[in-house]
Amino acid sequence: MENLTLEELCVHQVCIWKKSSFRESLECMARNGVFKTAVWNPLLDETELKSAKQNLIDSGVKAISMCPLVLLDEDAYPDPNGRLSAHQKFLENAAELGVESVVVITGGLPSGSRDLKEQRLRVQEELSLLIPLAKATGVRLALEPLHPMVCGHRSVISTLSEANEILDSLDANETLGIAVDSYALWWDSSLEEQIERSGQRLFNFHVSDWLHETRDVRLDRGMPGDGIIDNRLIRSWMEKAGFQGSVEVEILSEFNWWKQEPEVVLQSIVKSLPNL
Amino acid sequence: MENLTLEELCVHQVCIWKKSSFRESLECMARNGVFKTAVWNPLLDETELKSAKQNLIDSGVKAISMCPLVLLDEDAYPDPNGRLSAHQKFLENAAELGVESVVVITGGLPSGSRDLKEQRLRVQEELSLLIPLAKATGVRLALEPLHPMVCGHRSVISTLSEANEILDSLDANETLGIAVDSYALWWDSSLEEQIERSGQRLFNFHVSDWLHETRDVRLDRGMPGDGIIDNRLIRSWMEKAGFQGSVEVEILSEFNWWKQEPEVVLQSIVKSLPNL
Repeated sequence: MENLTLEELCVHQVCIWKKSSFRESLECMARNGVFKTAVWNPLLDETELKSAKQNLIDSGVKAISMCPLVLLDEDAYPDPNGRLSAHQKFLENAAELGVESVVVITGGLPSGSRDLKEQRLRVQEELSLLIPLAKATGVRLALEPLHPMVCGHRSVISTLSEANEILDSLDANETLGIAVDSYALWWDSSLEEQIERSGQRLFNFHVSDWLHETRDVRLDRGMPGDGIIDNRLIRSWMEKAGFQGSVEVEILSEFNWWKQEPEVVLQSIVKSLPNL
Repeated sequence: MENLTLEELCVHQVCIWKKSSFRESLECMARNGVFKTAVWNPLLDETELKSAKQNLIDSGVKAISMCPLVLLDEDAYPDPNGRLSAHQKFLENAAELGVESVVVITGGLPSGSRDLKEQRLRVQEELSLLIPLAKATGVRLALEPLHPMVCGHRSVISTLSEANEILDSLDANETLGIAVDSYALWWDSSLEEQIERSGQRLFNFHVSDWLHETRDVRLDRGMPGDGIIDNRLIRSWMEKAGFQGSVEVEILSEFNWWKQEPEVVLQSIVKSLPNL
Protein backbone atom coordinates (compact mmCIF):
# COMPACT_ATOMS: atom_id res chain seq x y z
CA MET A 1 0.00 0.00 0.00
CA GLU A 2 1.27 3.47 -0.81
CA ASN A 3 2.08 5.97 1.87
CA LEU A 4 -0.44 8.68 2.50
CA THR A 5 0.59 12.01 0.99
CA LEU A 6 0.34 15.40 2.62
CA GLU A 7 -2.36 16.28 0.06
CA GLU A 8 -4.57 13.48 1.35
CA LEU A 9 -4.12 14.48 4.99
CA CYS A 10 -6.78 16.38 6.89
CA VAL A 11 -6.10 17.69 10.38
CA HIS A 12 -9.05 18.14 12.69
CA GLN A 13 -9.15 21.51 14.46
CA VAL A 14 -9.78 19.66 17.71
CA CYS A 15 -6.11 18.59 17.76
CA ILE A 16 -5.02 22.15 18.57
CA TRP A 17 -8.21 23.88 19.71
CA LYS A 18 -7.07 24.60 23.25
CA LYS A 19 -4.22 26.85 22.16
CA SER A 20 -5.48 28.44 18.95
CA SER A 21 -8.44 30.43 17.74
CA PHE A 22 -10.36 29.32 14.66
CA ARG A 23 -8.15 31.53 12.49
CA GLU A 24 -4.85 30.62 14.15
CA SER A 25 -5.55 26.91 13.78
CA LEU A 26 -5.97 27.31 10.00
CA GLU A 27 -2.82 29.39 9.71
CA CYS A 28 -0.87 26.79 11.64
CA MET A 29 -2.10 24.05 9.30
CA ALA A 30 -1.23 26.06 6.19
CA ARG A 31 2.29 26.75 7.52
CA ASN A 32 2.76 23.01 7.81
CA GLY A 33 1.45 22.21 4.35
CA VAL A 34 -1.92 20.89 5.51
CA PHE A 35 -4.80 22.29 3.49
CA LYS A 36 -7.74 20.24 4.70
CA THR A 37 -9.45 20.49 8.02
CA ALA A 38 -12.41 19.28 9.99
CA VAL A 39 -14.19 22.10 11.77
CA TRP A 40 -14.62 21.67 15.51
CA ASN A 41 -17.90 23.34 16.28
CA PRO A 42 -16.97 24.55 19.79
CA LEU A 43 -14.13 26.52 18.18
CA LEU A 44 -16.44 27.93 15.53
CA ASP A 45 -18.75 29.04 18.33
CA GLU A 46 -16.01 31.37 19.54
CA THR A 47 -15.96 33.38 16.34
CA GLU A 48 -18.35 34.87 13.79
CA LEU A 49 -19.43 32.67 10.90
CA LYS A 50 -18.50 35.38 8.43
CA SER A 51 -14.97 35.69 9.85
CA ALA A 52 -14.60 31.93 9.91
CA LYS A 53 -15.50 31.78 6.23
CA GLN A 54 -12.97 34.49 5.48
CA ASN A 55 -10.31 32.69 7.53
CA LEU A 56 -10.81 29.58 5.42
CA ILE A 57 -10.46 31.59 2.21
CA ASP A 58 -7.41 33.49 3.46
CA SER A 59 -5.57 30.41 4.68
CA GLY A 60 -6.43 28.27 1.67
CA VAL A 61 -7.55 25.48 4.00
CA LYS A 62 -10.68 23.62 2.97
CA ALA A 63 -13.17 22.47 5.61
CA ILE A 64 -14.18 18.98 4.54
CA SER A 65 -16.18 18.08 7.61
CA MET A 66 -17.66 19.61 10.73
CA CYS A 67 -18.30 17.95 14.09
CA PRO A 68 -20.12 17.10 16.15
CA LEU A 69 -23.80 17.40 15.49
CA VAL A 70 -25.27 15.76 18.59
CA LEU A 71 -28.51 14.17 17.48
CA LEU A 72 -30.27 13.81 20.82
CA ASP A 73 -28.73 16.21 23.27
CA GLU A 74 -31.75 16.42 25.49
CA ASP A 75 -30.05 18.30 28.26
CA ALA A 76 -29.31 21.15 25.86
CA TYR A 77 -32.57 20.90 23.91
CA PRO A 78 -35.38 19.22 25.82
CA ASP A 79 -37.91 20.46 23.27
CA PRO A 80 -37.88 18.58 19.90
CA ASN A 81 -38.53 21.77 17.92
CA GLY A 82 -35.65 23.55 19.62
CA ARG A 83 -33.46 20.60 18.78
CA LEU A 84 -34.40 20.58 15.12
CA SER A 85 -33.83 24.32 14.88
CA ALA A 86 -30.37 23.82 16.34
CA HIS A 87 -29.67 21.03 13.82
CA GLN A 88 -30.90 23.28 11.01
CA LYS A 89 -28.56 26.06 12.14
CA PHE A 90 -25.63 23.63 12.37
CA LEU A 91 -26.26 22.43 8.80
CA GLU A 92 -26.63 25.96 7.47
CA ASN A 93 -23.35 26.98 9.08
CA ALA A 94 -21.65 23.93 7.58
CA ALA A 95 -23.05 24.74 4.14
CA GLU A 96 -21.89 28.33 4.46
CA LEU A 97 -18.35 27.14 5.21
CA GLY A 98 -18.38 24.82 2.20
CA VAL A 99 -18.26 21.71 4.35
CA GLU A 100 -18.97 18.42 2.57
CA SER A 101 -20.23 16.41 5.50
CA VAL A 102 -21.38 16.95 9.01
CA VAL A 103 -20.39 14.27 11.49
CA VAL A 104 -23.34 13.14 13.58
CA ILE A 105 -23.10 11.46 16.96
CA THR A 106 -26.20 10.22 18.69
CA GLY A 107 -25.67 11.45 22.25
CA GLY A 108 -25.99 9.07 25.19
CA LEU A 109 -28.84 7.92 27.36
CA PRO A 110 -31.12 10.65 28.70
CA SER A 111 -30.83 11.29 32.45
CA GLY A 112 -32.39 8.50 34.45
CA SER A 113 -32.78 6.11 31.52
CA ARG A 114 -31.31 2.64 31.17
CA ASP A 115 -33.23 1.82 28.01
CA LEU A 116 -30.74 1.51 25.16
CA LYS A 117 -33.24 -0.12 22.83
CA GLU A 118 -35.69 2.73 23.17
CA GLN A 119 -32.95 5.31 22.70
CA ARG A 120 -31.72 3.60 19.54
CA LEU A 121 -35.25 3.79 18.11
CA ARG A 122 -35.33 7.48 18.93
CA VAL A 123 -32.02 7.92 17.11
CA GLN A 124 -33.56 6.37 14.05
CA GLU A 125 -36.59 8.68 14.23
CA GLU A 126 -34.46 11.77 14.73
CA LEU A 127 -32.24 10.83 11.79
CA SER A 128 -35.31 10.50 9.60
CA LEU A 129 -36.22 14.09 10.56
CA LEU A 130 -32.67 15.29 9.93
CA ILE A 131 -32.32 13.83 6.44
CA PRO A 132 -34.68 16.28 4.69
CA LEU A 133 -32.98 19.20 6.46
CA ALA A 134 -29.60 17.99 5.21
CA LYS A 135 -30.92 17.52 1.69
CA ALA A 136 -32.26 21.05 1.71
CA THR A 137 -28.91 22.52 2.73
CA GLY A 138 -26.90 20.26 0.42
CA VAL A 139 -24.69 18.94 3.23
CA ARG A 140 -24.16 15.23 3.76
CA LEU A 141 -24.56 13.54 7.14
CA ALA A 142 -21.99 11.06 8.41
CA LEU A 143 -23.17 8.98 11.35
CA GLU A 144 -20.23 8.17 13.59
CA PRO A 145 -20.35 5.19 15.96
CA LEU A 146 -18.27 5.97 19.04
CA HIS A 147 -16.38 3.61 21.31
CA PRO A 148 -18.56 1.47 23.63
CA MET A 149 -16.88 3.14 26.60
CA VAL A 150 -18.82 6.33 25.84
CA CYS A 151 -22.11 4.57 25.14
CA GLY A 152 -23.70 6.02 28.26
CA HIS A 153 -23.07 9.69 27.63
CA ARG A 154 -21.95 10.25 24.04
CA SER A 155 -23.27 7.64 21.62
CA VAL A 156 -25.73 4.77 21.84
CA ILE A 157 -24.36 3.49 18.52
CA SER A 158 -21.13 1.67 19.31
CA THR A 159 -20.32 -0.47 16.28
CA LEU A 160 -20.23 -0.13 12.54
CA SER A 161 -22.68 -3.00 12.35
CA GLU A 162 -25.23 -1.00 14.38
CA ALA A 163 -24.68 2.05 12.15
CA ASN A 164 -25.07 -0.04 9.01
CA GLU A 165 -28.31 -1.50 10.32
CA ILE A 166 -29.77 1.94 10.97
CA LEU A 167 -28.72 3.13 7.54
CA ASP A 168 -30.27 0.07 5.93
CA SER A 169 -33.57 0.99 7.52
CA LEU A 170 -33.42 4.65 6.48
CA ASP A 171 -32.46 4.15 2.86
CA ALA A 172 -31.00 7.60 2.18
CA ASN A 173 -27.55 6.66 0.96
CA GLU A 174 -26.74 9.86 -0.87
CA THR A 175 -27.42 12.06 2.12
CA LEU A 176 -26.69 9.82 5.07
CA GLY A 177 -23.42 7.90 5.30
CA ILE A 178 -20.89 6.88 7.90
CA ALA A 179 -17.80 8.27 9.58
CA VAL A 180 -15.40 5.51 10.57
CA ASP A 181 -13.18 6.42 13.50
CA SER A 182 -10.33 3.99 13.98
CA TYR A 183 -10.10 4.82 17.69
CA ALA A 184 -13.74 3.88 18.19
CA LEU A 185 -13.80 0.72 16.13
CA TRP A 186 -10.33 -0.87 15.91
CA TRP A 187 -11.08 -3.64 18.44
CA ASP A 188 -14.03 -5.10 16.50
CA SER A 189 -13.26 -8.42 14.80
CA SER A 190 -16.01 -7.76 12.25
CA LEU A 191 -14.62 -4.35 11.26
CA GLU A 192 -13.20 -5.34 7.87
CA GLU A 193 -16.46 -7.03 6.93
CA GLN A 194 -18.55 -4.09 8.14
CA ILE A 195 -16.39 -1.57 6.27
CA GLU A 196 -16.93 -3.62 3.13
CA ARG A 197 -20.68 -3.63 3.86
CA SER A 198 -20.63 0.16 4.28
CA GLY A 199 -19.11 0.62 0.81
CA GLN A 200 -20.39 3.81 -0.79
CA ARG A 201 -21.65 4.98 2.59
CA LEU A 202 -18.10 5.67 3.76
CA PHE A 203 -18.04 9.46 3.91
CA ASN A 204 -15.34 10.16 6.51
CA PHE A 205 -12.35 8.45 8.07
CA HIS A 206 -10.98 9.63 11.41
CA VAL A 207 -7.76 8.30 12.88
CA SER A 208 -5.77 8.53 16.08
CA ASP A 209 -4.14 5.91 18.26
CA TRP A 210 -5.00 3.85 21.32
CA LEU A 211 -2.44 4.35 24.05
CA HIS A 212 -1.51 1.31 26.07
CA GLU A 213 -2.18 3.09 29.35
CA THR A 214 -5.35 5.02 28.61
CA ARG A 215 -6.19 7.48 31.40
CA ASP A 216 -9.57 8.80 30.29
CA VAL A 217 -12.53 7.31 28.47
CA ARG A 218 -12.74 10.23 26.07
CA LEU A 219 -9.77 12.56 26.09
CA ASP A 220 -6.63 10.44 26.02
CA ARG A 221 -6.14 9.64 22.35
CA GLY A 222 -2.66 9.20 20.94
CA MET A 223 -0.72 10.31 17.89
CA PRO A 224 -0.84 7.67 15.13
CA GLY A 225 2.15 5.43 15.77
CA ASP A 226 2.25 5.96 19.53
CA GLY A 227 -0.27 3.23 20.30
CA ILE A 228 -1.58 -0.12 19.16
CA ILE A 229 -4.04 0.61 16.36
CA ASP A 230 -3.00 -0.63 12.93
CA ASN A 231 -4.30 2.47 11.12
CA ARG A 232 -2.70 1.49 7.82
CA LEU A 233 -4.54 -1.82 7.84
CA ILE A 234 -7.85 -0.07 8.49
CA ARG A 235 -7.10 2.43 5.72
CA SER A 236 -6.48 -0.49 3.35
CA TRP A 237 -9.93 -1.86 4.21
CA MET A 238 -11.47 1.57 3.64
CA GLU A 239 -9.83 1.91 0.24
CA LYS A 240 -10.75 -1.64 -0.77
CA ALA A 241 -14.35 -0.73 0.02
CA GLY A 242 -14.12 2.24 -2.34
CA PHE A 243 -13.35 5.10 0.04
CA GLN A 244 -11.46 7.88 -1.71
CA GLY A 245 -11.69 10.67 0.86
CA SER A 246 -9.05 12.16 3.11
CA VAL A 247 -7.64 10.72 6.29
CA GLU A 248 -8.68 13.01 9.15
CA VAL A 249 -6.36 12.98 12.14
CA GLU A 250 -8.50 13.66 15.18
CA ILE A 251 -6.68 13.64 18.52
CA LEU A 252 -8.55 14.52 21.70
CA SER A 253 -5.75 14.61 24.25
CA GLU A 254 -6.21 16.47 27.50
CA PHE A 255 -3.01 15.19 29.08
CA ASN A 256 -0.59 15.63 26.24
CA TRP A 257 -1.27 17.14 22.83
CA TRP A 258 -3.74 19.80 23.95
CA LYS A 259 -1.02 21.11 26.24
CA GLN A 260 1.56 21.42 23.48
CA GLU A 261 2.11 24.26 21.08
CA PRO A 262 -0.04 23.92 17.91
CA GLU A 263 3.10 24.12 15.78
CA VAL A 264 4.56 21.09 17.56
CA VAL A 265 1.31 19.15 17.20
CA LEU A 266 1.09 19.85 13.47
CA GLN A 267 4.71 18.87 12.92
CA SER A 268 4.13 15.62 14.80
CA ILE A 269 1.04 14.84 12.75
CA VAL A 270 2.90 15.44 9.50
CA LYS A 271 5.70 13.19 10.75
CA SER A 272 3.13 10.48 11.49
CA LEU A 273 2.16 10.16 7.81
CA PRO A 274 3.97 6.80 7.40
CA ASN A 275 1.73 5.41 10.16
CA LEU A 276 -1.48 6.38 8.36
CA MET B 1 -39.52 -11.30 36.90
CA GLU B 2 -38.89 -12.36 40.47
CA ASN B 3 -36.38 -10.61 42.66
CA LEU B 4 -33.08 -12.32 43.17
CA THR B 5 -32.81 -14.00 46.56
CA LEU B 6 -29.86 -13.93 48.91
CA GLU B 7 -29.39 -17.65 48.21
CA GLU B 8 -28.81 -16.94 44.52
CA LEU B 9 -26.32 -14.17 45.21
CA CYS B 10 -22.58 -14.69 44.87
CA VAL B 11 -20.13 -12.00 45.94
CA HIS B 12 -16.77 -11.92 44.27
CA GLN B 13 -13.82 -11.64 46.66
CA VAL B 14 -12.46 -8.86 44.48
CA CYS B 15 -15.12 -6.51 45.88
CA ILE B 16 -13.35 -6.43 49.24
CA TRP B 17 -9.88 -7.78 48.54
CA LYS B 18 -8.00 -4.61 49.43
CA LYS B 19 -9.11 -4.65 53.05
CA SER B 20 -9.48 -8.33 53.85
CA SER B 21 -7.46 -11.48 53.75
CA PHE B 22 -8.81 -14.58 52.01
CA ARG B 23 -10.23 -15.80 55.33
CA GLU B 24 -11.63 -12.44 56.45
CA SER B 25 -13.45 -11.95 53.16
CA LEU B 26 -15.30 -15.24 53.61
CA GLU B 27 -16.19 -14.46 57.22
CA CYS B 28 -17.54 -11.08 56.15
CA MET B 29 -19.71 -12.70 53.51
CA ALA B 30 -21.06 -15.29 55.93
CA ARG B 31 -21.91 -12.60 58.51
CA ASN B 32 -24.02 -10.94 55.82
CA GLY B 33 -25.81 -14.11 54.75
CA VAL B 34 -23.85 -14.59 51.53
CA PHE B 35 -22.65 -18.16 51.06
CA LYS B 36 -21.30 -18.13 47.55
CA THR B 37 -18.13 -16.53 46.33
CA ALA B 38 -15.85 -16.20 43.37
CA VAL B 39 -12.23 -16.64 44.33
CA TRP B 40 -9.92 -13.80 43.32
CA ASN B 41 -6.63 -15.47 42.54
CA PRO B 42 -4.38 -12.61 43.70
CA LEU B 43 -5.97 -12.97 47.15
CA LEU B 44 -5.49 -16.73 47.10
CA ASP B 45 -1.83 -16.12 46.27
CA GLU B 46 -1.44 -14.44 49.65
CA THR B 47 -2.37 -17.54 51.59
CA GLU B 48 -1.74 -21.29 51.57
CA LEU B 49 -4.06 -23.44 49.47
CA LYS B 50 -4.65 -25.74 52.44
CA SER B 51 -5.68 -22.84 54.67
CA ALA B 52 -7.87 -21.39 51.95
CA LYS B 53 -9.68 -24.70 51.67
CA GLN B 54 -10.15 -24.81 55.43
CA ASN B 55 -11.42 -21.20 55.43
CA LEU B 56 -14.08 -22.15 52.92
CA ILE B 57 -15.17 -25.11 55.03
CA ASP B 58 -15.16 -23.11 58.27
CA SER B 59 -17.15 -20.19 56.83
CA GLY B 60 -19.64 -22.33 54.98
CA VAL B 61 -19.04 -20.23 51.84
CA LYS B 62 -18.85 -22.12 48.58
CA ALA B 63 -16.41 -21.03 45.85
CA ILE B 64 -18.32 -21.32 42.62
CA SER B 65 -15.77 -19.71 40.37
CA MET B 66 -12.18 -18.52 40.33
CA CYS B 67 -10.63 -15.71 38.28
CA PRO B 68 -8.76 -14.80 36.30
CA LEU B 69 -6.87 -17.38 34.35
CA VAL B 70 -5.00 -15.23 31.84
CA LEU B 71 -4.64 -17.34 28.73
CA LEU B 72 -1.76 -15.56 27.03
CA ASP B 73 0.13 -13.57 29.61
CA GLU B 74 3.37 -13.50 27.68
CA ASP B 75 5.08 -11.01 29.93
CA ALA B 76 4.71 -13.39 32.84
CA TYR B 77 5.26 -16.59 30.85
CA PRO B 78 7.17 -16.07 27.62
CA ASP B 79 7.73 -19.82 27.32
CA PRO B 80 4.66 -21.85 26.21
CA ASN B 81 5.50 -24.75 28.51
CA GLY B 82 5.83 -22.45 31.49
CA ARG B 83 2.45 -21.00 30.61
CA LEU B 84 0.77 -24.37 30.39
CA SER B 85 2.27 -25.41 33.71
CA ALA B 86 0.89 -22.25 35.28
CA HIS B 87 -2.55 -22.98 33.79
CA GLN B 88 -2.35 -26.54 35.08
CA LYS B 89 -1.54 -25.28 38.58
CA PHE B 90 -4.40 -22.77 38.44
CA LEU B 91 -6.85 -25.53 37.48
CA GLU B 92 -5.55 -27.88 40.17
CA ASN B 93 -5.93 -25.18 42.81
CA ALA B 94 -9.47 -24.49 41.61
CA ALA B 95 -10.32 -28.19 41.74
CA GLU B 96 -8.88 -28.46 45.25
CA LEU B 97 -11.13 -25.58 46.39
CA GLY B 98 -14.21 -27.24 44.87
CA VAL B 99 -14.61 -24.50 42.27
CA GLU B 100 -17.06 -25.24 39.45
CA SER B 101 -15.59 -22.99 36.81
CA VAL B 102 -12.49 -21.03 36.15
CA VAL B 103 -12.99 -17.70 34.40
CA VAL B 104 -10.60 -17.31 31.49
CA ILE B 105 -9.57 -14.00 29.96
CA THR B 106 -7.36 -13.92 26.92
CA GLY B 107 -4.85 -11.22 27.83
CA GLY B 108 -4.12 -8.34 25.48
CA LEU B 109 -1.74 -7.81 22.60
CA PRO B 110 1.88 -8.84 23.20
CA SER B 111 4.34 -5.94 23.50
CA GLY B 112 4.97 -4.33 20.14
CA SER B 113 2.13 -6.08 18.33
CA ARG B 114 -0.81 -4.47 16.56
CA ASP B 115 -2.07 -7.72 15.07
CA LEU B 116 -5.42 -8.52 16.64
CA LYS B 117 -6.29 -11.18 14.09
CA GLU B 118 -3.10 -13.12 14.77
CA GLN B 119 -3.60 -12.82 18.53
CA ARG B 120 -7.16 -14.12 18.26
CA LEU B 121 -5.89 -17.17 16.40
CA ARG B 122 -3.37 -17.74 19.16
CA VAL B 123 -6.17 -17.53 21.73
CA GLN B 124 -7.98 -20.27 19.88
CA GLU B 125 -4.89 -22.47 19.80
CA GLU B 126 -4.14 -21.91 23.49
CA LEU B 127 -7.75 -22.73 24.42
CA SER B 128 -7.48 -25.99 22.51
CA LEU B 129 -4.46 -26.86 24.66
CA LEU B 130 -6.25 -25.83 27.84
CA ILE B 131 -9.38 -27.91 27.28
CA PRO B 132 -7.76 -31.33 27.92
CA LEU B 133 -6.11 -29.95 31.09
CA ALA B 134 -9.49 -28.74 32.33
CA LYS B 135 -11.14 -32.05 31.51
CA ALA B 136 -8.45 -33.89 33.47
CA THR B 137 -8.97 -31.74 36.57
CA GLY B 138 -12.78 -31.75 36.26
CA VAL B 139 -13.05 -27.96 36.30
CA ARG B 140 -15.02 -26.09 33.64
CA LEU B 141 -13.60 -23.12 31.73
CA ALA B 142 -15.66 -19.96 31.22
CA LEU B 143 -14.28 -17.64 28.57
CA GLU B 144 -15.06 -14.05 29.49
CA PRO B 145 -15.13 -11.33 26.85
CA LEU B 146 -14.03 -8.04 28.40
CA HIS B 147 -15.00 -4.51 27.47
CA PRO B 148 -13.46 -3.19 24.21
CA MET B 149 -11.72 -0.48 26.24
CA VAL B 150 -9.36 -3.12 27.64
CA CYS B 151 -8.82 -4.87 24.32
CA GLY B 152 -5.21 -3.74 24.17
CA HIS B 153 -3.99 -5.04 27.49
CA ARG B 154 -6.54 -7.45 28.99
CA SER B 155 -8.65 -9.23 26.38
CA VAL B 156 -8.62 -9.46 22.61
CA ILE B 157 -12.13 -10.94 22.79
CA SER B 158 -14.51 -8.02 23.26
CA THR B 159 -17.98 -9.27 22.38
CA LEU B 160 -20.14 -12.27 23.10
CA SER B 161 -20.38 -12.83 19.37
CA GLU B 162 -16.59 -13.24 19.16
CA ALA B 163 -16.62 -15.64 22.12
CA ASN B 164 -19.44 -17.66 20.57
CA GLU B 165 -17.54 -17.92 17.31
CA ILE B 166 -14.45 -19.26 19.03
CA LEU B 167 -16.52 -21.77 20.99
CA ASP B 168 -18.25 -22.91 17.80
CA SER B 169 -14.86 -23.71 16.33
CA LEU B 170 -13.62 -25.60 19.41
CA ASP B 171 -16.67 -27.75 19.99
CA ALA B 172 -16.09 -28.59 23.66
CA ASN B 173 -19.35 -27.41 25.15
CA GLU B 174 -19.23 -29.43 28.35
CA THR B 175 -15.83 -28.14 29.35
CA LEU B 176 -15.65 -24.72 27.73
CA GLY B 177 -18.43 -22.17 28.20
CA ILE B 178 -18.85 -18.47 28.67
CA ALA B 179 -18.86 -15.94 31.49
CA VAL B 180 -21.14 -13.01 30.68
CA ASP B 181 -20.15 -9.81 32.46
CA SER B 182 -22.81 -7.13 32.24
CA TYR B 183 -20.22 -4.37 32.64
CA ALA B 184 -18.30 -5.62 29.63
CA LEU B 185 -21.22 -6.29 27.32
CA TRP B 186 -24.22 -4.10 28.23
CA TRP B 187 -23.72 -1.64 25.32
CA ASP B 188 -23.99 -4.27 22.58
CA SER B 189 -27.26 -4.15 20.64
CA SER B 190 -26.87 -7.84 19.74
CA LEU B 191 -26.45 -8.93 23.36
CA GLU B 192 -29.88 -10.53 23.80
CA GLU B 193 -29.47 -12.49 20.58
CA GLN B 194 -25.94 -13.58 21.48
CA ILE B 195 -26.99 -14.67 24.98
CA GLU B 196 -29.69 -16.80 23.37
CA ARG B 197 -27.09 -18.22 20.98
CA SER B 198 -24.82 -19.05 23.94
CA GLY B 199 -27.57 -21.10 25.60
CA GLN B 200 -26.10 -24.04 27.49
CA ARG B 201 -22.69 -22.45 27.28
CA LEU B 202 -23.64 -19.82 29.86
CA PHE B 203 -21.56 -20.88 32.86
CA ASN B 204 -21.17 -17.62 34.80
CA PHE B 205 -22.86 -14.26 35.13
CA HIS B 206 -20.98 -11.26 36.54
CA VAL B 207 -22.66 -7.98 37.31
CA SER B 208 -21.74 -4.48 38.38
CA ASP B 209 -22.77 -1.06 37.09
CA TRP B 210 -21.49 1.50 34.62
CA LEU B 211 -21.05 4.86 36.31
CA HIS B 212 -21.97 7.89 34.28
CA GLU B 213 -18.63 9.55 34.92
CA THR B 214 -16.20 6.68 34.58
CA ARG B 215 -12.71 7.63 35.69
CA ASP B 216 -10.71 4.55 34.79
CA VAL B 217 -10.89 2.01 31.99
CA ARG B 218 -10.66 -0.89 34.39
CA LEU B 219 -11.12 -0.04 38.05
CA ASP B 220 -14.15 2.25 38.32
CA ARG B 221 -17.11 -0.12 38.36
CA GLY B 222 -20.21 0.78 40.29
CA MET B 223 -22.63 -0.92 42.68
CA PRO B 224 -25.67 -2.32 40.82
CA GLY B 225 -28.21 0.49 40.83
CA ASP B 226 -25.67 3.33 40.89
CA GLY B 227 -25.21 3.43 37.13
CA ILE B 228 -26.92 2.89 33.82
CA ILE B 229 -26.83 -0.85 33.19
CA ASP B 230 -30.19 -2.59 33.21
CA ASN B 231 -28.88 -5.67 35.04
CA ARG B 232 -32.37 -7.10 35.60
CA LEU B 233 -33.05 -7.03 31.87
CA ILE B 234 -29.79 -8.83 31.15
CA ARG B 235 -30.59 -11.38 33.86
CA SER B 236 -33.95 -11.99 32.21
CA TRP B 237 -32.15 -12.74 28.91
CA MET B 238 -29.76 -15.09 30.73
CA GLU B 239 -32.62 -16.98 32.36
CA LYS B 240 -34.61 -17.16 29.13
CA ALA B 241 -31.55 -18.74 27.54
CA GLY B 242 -31.52 -21.41 30.26
CA PHE B 243 -28.99 -20.04 32.72
CA GLN B 244 -29.68 -21.27 36.24
CA GLY B 245 -26.49 -20.25 38.02
CA SER B 246 -25.84 -17.54 40.56
CA VAL B 247 -25.49 -13.85 39.97
CA GLU B 248 -21.90 -12.88 40.82
CA VAL B 249 -21.43 -9.29 41.91
CA GLU B 250 -17.94 -8.26 40.83
CA ILE B 251 -16.97 -4.67 41.57
CA LEU B 252 -13.46 -3.44 40.79
CA SER B 253 -13.49 0.02 42.30
CA GLU B 254 -10.24 1.72 43.13
CA PHE B 255 -11.82 5.09 43.93
CA ASN B 256 -14.74 4.03 46.06
CA TRP B 257 -15.61 0.51 47.18
CA TRP B 258 -12.08 -0.77 47.62
CA LYS B 259 -11.54 2.07 50.09
CA GLN B 260 -14.57 1.21 52.18
CA GLU B 261 -14.85 -1.28 55.01
CA PRO B 262 -15.71 -4.79 53.75
CA GLU B 263 -18.75 -4.86 56.05
CA VAL B 264 -20.12 -1.72 54.39
CA VAL B 265 -19.50 -3.14 50.92
CA LEU B 266 -21.28 -6.38 51.72
CA GLN B 267 -24.24 -4.58 53.23
CA SER B 268 -24.50 -2.41 50.13
CA ILE B 269 -24.37 -5.42 47.84
CA VAL B 270 -27.11 -7.16 49.79
CA LYS B 271 -29.20 -3.99 49.62
CA SER B 272 -28.70 -3.92 45.83
CA LEU B 273 -30.56 -7.24 45.38
CA PRO B 274 -33.65 -5.52 43.89
CA ASN B 275 -31.41 -4.14 41.12
CA LEU B 276 -30.11 -7.55 40.12
